[in-house]
Amino acid sequence: MRRPTSTTVLEAYGRLKGRVRRTPVLRNEALDELAGAKLYIKCENLQLTGSFKIRGATNRLLQIPKEGRAAGVVAFSSGNHAQGVARAAKLLGMPALIVMPSDAPGVKIDGVRADGADIHLYDRDTESREAIAERIADERGAVLVPSFDDPFIVEGQGSCGAEFAEQIAESGDALDHIICCAGGGGLITGLALGYKASDPSTKIWTAEPEAHDDWRRSLASGEKQVNAPGTRSICDAILTPSPGELTWALGKELLAGGCAVSDDHIRDAMRQAFRHLKLVVEPGGAAALASALHDLPSEAKGKNVGVVFSGGNVDPAQFAGIISG
Amino acid sequence: MRRPTSTTVLEAYGRLKGRVRRTPVLRNEALDELAGAKLYIKCENLQLTGSFKIRGATNRLLQIPKEGRAAGVVAFSSGNHAQGVARAAKLLGMPALIVMPSDAPGVKIDGVRADGADIHLYDRDTESREAIAERIADERGAVLVPSFDDPFIVEGQGSCGAEFAEQIAESGDALDHIICCAGGGGLITGLALGYKASDPSTKIWTAEPEAHDDWRRSLASGEKQVNAPGTRSICDAILTPSPGELTWALGKELLAGGCAVSDDHIRDAMRQAFRHLKLVVEPGGAAALASALHDLPSEAKGKNVGVVFSGGNVDPAQFAGIISG
Repeated sequence: MRRPTSTTVLEAYGRLKGRVRRTPVLRNEALDELAGAKLYIKCENLQLTGSFKIRGATNRLLQIPKEGRAAGVVAFSSGNHAQGVARAAKLLGMPALIVMPSDAPGVKIDGVRADGADIHLYDRDTESREAIAERIADERGAVLVPSFDDPFIVEGQGSCGAEFAEQIAESGDALDHIICCAGGGGLITGLALGYKASDPSTKIWTAEPEAHDDWRRSLASGEKQVNAPGTRSICDAILTPSPGELTWALGKELLAGGCAVSDDHIRDAMRQAFRHLKLVVEPGGAAALASALHDLPSEAKGKNVGVVFSGGNVDPAQFAGIISG
Repeated sequence: MRRPTSTTVLEAYGRLKGRVRRTPVLRNEALDELAGAKLYIKCENLQLTGSFKIRGATNRLLQIPKEGRAAGVVAFSSGNHAQGVARAAKLLGMPALIVMPSDAPGVKIDGVRADGADIHLYDRDTESREAIAERIADERGAVLVPSFDDPFIVEGQGSCGAEFAEQIAESGDALDHIICCAGGGGLITGLALGYKASDPSTKIWTAEPEAHDDWRRSLASGEKQVNAPGTRSICDAILTPSPGELTWALGKELLAGGCAVSDDHIRDAMRQAFRHLKLVVEPGGAAALASALHDLPSEAKGKNVGVVFSGGNVDPAQFAGIISG
């Protein structure tokens, strides 16, 4: 598989300008005090479709030659990638079909539907989403758009890192560390390439739920680790069994290590974002702030720390329960 | 009373740069469809202290000569002005005392306390906050900081309009209309001066709760109108009995007319902001979006419409109830 570099990420950043949103970076003194560090928060929950995923999806779909666009695209995803692909397809005038688990958050299913994509629901416990998606893509002659283990996806997500570096430079400051959630690893590896193009000394750390700390254990051991099957967390967006093939090859060289937090830490971070930032962050999207507040690497204490909010697609009932809890 | 102009608002904008946040302007297609107009949403709920009020407070406090700062400031407010004054005083190293109603939202009282200000609680039904604040200011030799009817306050809030105009110009577009909530009227009259410095043709409309539509009736009749006593709304931040003296003198010349919405419209706007923008907006802060969605002036249909989110300070239990309602 072709290996993304800082250069190809910067190219993707140029390609995506004007197609995706330049999301704000926020500062907050109350959160700084709680974390014991100076936080710069990159708000991809304010991105189009409510998560960073439209960056990679748009970058991937732009590679499909004009004559191949009529057959459209197929993707499988529990939600944010689904919405990213559906919106990117809509903006490029392509049909899209998304294979989603029947227990995906309603807000994510609604988002996909609102962008005009077809939805095929499957049972997470008895069916293989990969097999279903491949069969449908074959039948349609459509392009299957993977959610992370693909160079164009990694480069597209990486545009977030290039943009973050530009914004930090504009502020006149510099980041010693960045904490970013990791599921498959498309965002964090792309972000590391994109950010390090400007500042190679910045250390990048994964954020995960404790029971799904495959990246943390992989980085600590130097070997790709797999999560025990059947573990659960409220972080629906980042529950992948292990780092991807491409993303691990990149991540083991680019990343400094991993943080891990409990679901209670996640809920606390969501409440702090509500209270101090007036932002809605979904559970997986709050893993990096939860890590900054509850599992900050000791070398990051008192330093400038970037924190990525990766998404804000959370069902109202779940959000209501968490903020009033 | 000295009368603010577009020039003095632009001066305040320059004075406040680097002291307050340049808040983002967001676009959202789903909200455009619901409103039947192209909306540009100015997010002052993401301002320091969670509302625009720190703009006016900082501008006012900067007028106090260095030798007068030790005696500090006094203000009365149900919440957002309280937090703006408390934070501005903290940043300028001045003591502050805030007179607040005992039924103010807890999140606002906590915000004031967190910035180190003293709080004097009073009973909204039996005590006069003006009298209490004047007495305390006299005792302390402190400066009483009014919440809207003051040229420096109007000019400070107006920096939001100058900033909005700059951001719209950067986007390469132009606004035909702006809808902004109106309580005392400090924000909307300052915003009108600040925005019209760049584009005098933009029409500015007030947004209010139906039972508190003093601005709408005042603008329609050309005479300052007063709300019936005892009317209630969930929009705690904008429940003033009538336009102010200075703000009415400005508003009757600058404003095009008024919109008014029910509390159910307000709740709907808060839910739409949660769902589509991932933003927390307080009831009064959502009045302009509620107006765009439910009481858009007919001449604004299909046009470019600015919408101001003035604040996001809402108690978690109230917000939870509204988004899951």
